[in-house]
Amino acid sequence: MAQVALTTDIGEGYGRWELADDEALLDVVTAANIACGFHGGDPGTMRRTCKLSVANGVAIGAQVSYRDLHGFGRRFIAYGRQELTDDLLYQIGALEVFARTAGDKINYVSAHGALYNAAATVTEHAQAIVDATREYNADLPLLAQVGTETWRLGREAGLNMVAEAFVDRAYTPQGLLVPRTEPDAMLSDPAQASARAVEMVTQGEITAIDGSRIPIRAEAILVHCDTAGSVEIARATRKALEAAGVDLVRLG
Amino acid sequence: MAQVALTTDIGEGYGRWELADDEALLDVVTAANIACGFHGGDPGTMRRTCKLSVANGVAIGAQVSYRDLHGFGRRFIAYGRQELTDDLLYQIGALEVFARTAGDKINYVSAHGALYNAAATVTEHAQAIVDATREYNADLPLLAQVGTETWRLGREAGLNMVAEAFVDRAYTPQGLLVPRTEPDAMLSDPAQASARAVEMVTQGEITAIDGSRIPIRAEAILVHCDTAGSVEIARATRKALEAAGVDLVRLG
Amino acid sequence: MAQVALTTDIGEGYGRWELADDEALLDVVTAANIACGFHGGDPGTMRRTCKLSVANGVAIGAQVSYRDLHGFGRRFIAYGRQELTDDLLYQIGALEVFARTAGDKINYVSAHGALYNAAATVTEHAQAIVDATREYNADLPLLAQVGTETWRLGREAGLNMVAEAFVDRAYTPQGLLVPRTEPDAMLSDPAQASARAVEMVTQGEITAIDGSRIPIRAEAILVHCDTAGSVEIARATRKALEAAGVDLVRLG
Amino acid sequence: MAQVALTTDIGEGYGRWELADDEALLDVVTAANIACGFHGGDPGTMRRTCKLSVANGVAIGAQVSYRDLHGFGRRFIAYGRQELTDDLLYQIGALEVFARTAGDKINYVSAHGALYNAAATVTEHAQAIVDATREYNADLPLLAQVGTETWRLGREAGLNMVAEAFVDRAYTPQGLLVPRTEPDAMLSDPAQASARAVEMVTQGEITAIDGSRIPIRAEAILVHCDTAGSVEIARATRKALEAAGVDLVRLG
Repeated sequence: MAQVALTTDIGEGYGRWELADDEALLDVVTAANIACGFHGGDPGTMRRTCKLSVANGVAIGAQVSYRDLHGFGRRFIAYGRQELTDDLLYQIGALEVFARTAGDKINYVSAHGALYNAAATVTEHAQAIVDATREYNADLPLLAQVGTETWRLGREAGLNMVAEAFVDRAYTPQGLLVPRTEPDAMLSDPAQASARAVEMVTQGEITAIDGSRIPIRAEAILVHCDTAGSVEIARATRKALEAAGVDLVRLG
Repeated sequence: MAQVALTTDIGEGYGRWELADDEALLDVVTAANIACGFHGGDPGTMRRTCKLSVANGVAIGAQVSYRDLHGFGRRFIAYGRQELTDDLLYQIGALEVFARTAGDKINYVSAHGALYNAAATVTEHAQAIVDATREYNADLPLLAQVGTETWRLGREAGLNMVAEAFVDRAYTPQGLLVPRTEPDAMLSDPAQASARAVEMVTQGEITAIDGSRIPIRAEAILVHCDTAGSVEIARATRKALEAAGVDLVRLG
Repeated sequence: MAQVALTTDIGEGYGRWELADDEALLDVVTAANIACGFHGGDPGTMRRTCKLSVANGVAIGAQVSYRDLHGFGRRFIAYGRQELTDDLLYQIGALEVFARTAGDKINYVSAHGALYNAAATVTEHAQAIVDATREYNADLPLLAQVGTETWRLGREAGLNMVAEAFVDRAYTPQGLLVPRTEPDAMLSDPAQASARAVEMVTQGEITAIDGSRIPIRAEAILVHCDTAGSVEIARATRKALEAAGVDLVRLG
Repeated sequence: MAQVALTTDIGEGYGRWELADDEALLDVVTAANIACGFHGGDPGTMRRTCKLSVANGVAIGAQVSYRDLHGFGRRFIAYGRQELTDDLLYQIGALEVFARTAGDKINYVSAHGALYNAAATVTEHAQAIVDATREYNADLPLLAQVGTETWRLGREAGLNMVAEAFVDRAYTPQGLLVPRTEPDAMLSDPAQASARAVEMVTQGEITAIDGSRIPIRAEAILVHCDTAGSVEIARATRKALEAAGVDLVRLG
């Protein structure tokens, strides 16, 4: 029987500012990529998000990012490998406390925004993600797209790599994400997105933006929390996966 | 035989900026109050400082503070109790990772600057320090001056309170620190400072700024890292304590 | 004929985060207290808010605050007078550029959140607001409540003081604001708030939270942008003032 | 008679942290690239540095940078053109206030660190520097190396471009700076550096790192403030230029 973790980015408010309907999303997903304060999230938000995740039986994951509140972690920053590793470890450690006080632990690591995208091709940054994960806990699952530098280096390092795919993003024929700056980069129709989620998980292939069929490996599928209609997309996706007999699992 | 931990604030640079001769100080003290990134310190500095502490057999402590890089944690900030607790826990968790990768753990908690001073009298802030320490690890030593709110609430909470005194600061007749803004607040002569350190530890009393004798309890004594001549003060203090037959111990 | 400026706090998003319906509010008010990046607001938001203010004929004011993004400027910070003055001047200067490129200038100064509240009684902080305003432009209007330290020191310094009152906040019998932490501190009913605005402006007195009548001087009246229903409150207030024959003026 | 402006980066401390001997340097240079708070510098430092510049007859320039205190502005950040322009304008505006209260104005613009380096080739970032300068004041001098995108776009925009060269950095045969990460990137011998400064200004050519002779245009020459021995290099350079009959001028 097919199985998948349904994830979302979460806890991405900061101080006075909120971003998404975190409560509604944590009622749907099975694993939460929780922001750790560097692109969004603050200690109070981290505590509440961890607590709510545990209350919903949702697995806590560390969603690490560049140090960039102003740019929401969506701008590449040319860190060196070591300083990036250190910034990522700092975030994981900080989240661990709140996972622990909520009665859970860090179950996996996931990279956010520009770091995630850059690490697909920038070896130093992929290596930093792998280094930080391994130093923290060499048994910890790390989420990444198959075919990226993060995937390759994580495998080389013997990490427990989990193949990630996106419910609400269009793909190029090469299996990469269509950049957000392009039209049709985002899927906003819950029916379309959820149908594709089922396709990803049960068939291992999807239709790319040019109409071609591409293989895709999806052990964790993500719904972005700040997409328009993200809650509806998440709910439709969960329902469709359950209807297709897919087992929705936690991570870690 | 009398015993005491010799501590210092350390790892208080940030990015391009350095503050003190951390290497020299870590060669002298037995316990290091390591900055956690909120008033000073950054992940790279934290890693290096933890590593160097372990190499020198120095106990790693978390030196937590208000979120105030610009003010170096020396300005009171009117946090509520819960949001302060969360900010402190975040810092402790972040430091733990680097303590762990260096082969040690967090051995104790200590508050920095305005937080330390405020918590002497502001109940909510003292409570936040106690809450954060207890939530993190209820067995962990917490440093505080006897007679402060932090001391009182820590005792009430059953924490392992460690009485802290200052080698390089003048005291009022009431046993409080003379504010840095006043003349003669700082002791900069190594001979004078070290003699007083011995007095504190072996006799349990010192001479206040007005010449009166006051009782003082000193299980951990601190040399500030950014005082003029801090390395000389630390060395003289260590030498004088050893000459007086005091056992220099780690904390935690 | 009675006249008043109708103001609001505005441009208080930061990077990815938005706070209020700035467009709708700038369609109603006559003067905009624009955040300058220290508690909210960022350069891009400042540019857009200035541009939109000018397009709507709304006067641009500098809404200065403590350096506290995480606390949204709502936590007292124990700055010294000089360092606070410098932080405030920095903000005014930064906003001036965007006011200028939008075709306007800084028309007045207003303090935000905890700074505004603290400066009512903390002489050093009131003095810093007055110092910064005077150094920037000694002819510039400064908004403050009558009876506060800011008002007193501003008058002493010969500044062009403008009496400020709040449409959506309850008052104590002493004419101070009921703290946000108390029940009934905020007025959320547009009919009630707008009726009181008219009363403030045309009669110079209002009913305090205990039912007593208190005098109030209102040359500028503020609607908070992040109160529930702020747009409705602002619209109702404008309509009611116009119906009462009050002249709605810009500031500066 | 040959003439040149002798400049340095200055005011790059932050809060508790200092970086260079600003007083000594401002006694030697004729123009000061003052940090504006985004990579270093804070409002208090900006005020003091402006005041000291004016007292020494040194021209105040805005040294703008990426928003990156932790990385000291030395990491490329993939800003879009508009958001970078806004961040730069914000900095210039903030510095203007302190220049004004010190009795001067912004006399020129200069980019710091990674922004300076990136803008040599990244068109969008060069354009942002040019846009910000032009929007602020279309007559203002902008410092850049000849041959860079900044130079090209600034010329195209009709800006008053000033050719910048470096006293303490090695050059490639192509006339670019040898990266700081390479050995021999920095010139630390005052005699060598000052001799080269004279060569730059009076002959318009220097010896590159491979021994070849390359043309160089130097209307402003910079001594880095945080190079080892920067004060000695600056003094030797000034002395050598004066001995060679070069007229040391302010900028703007």
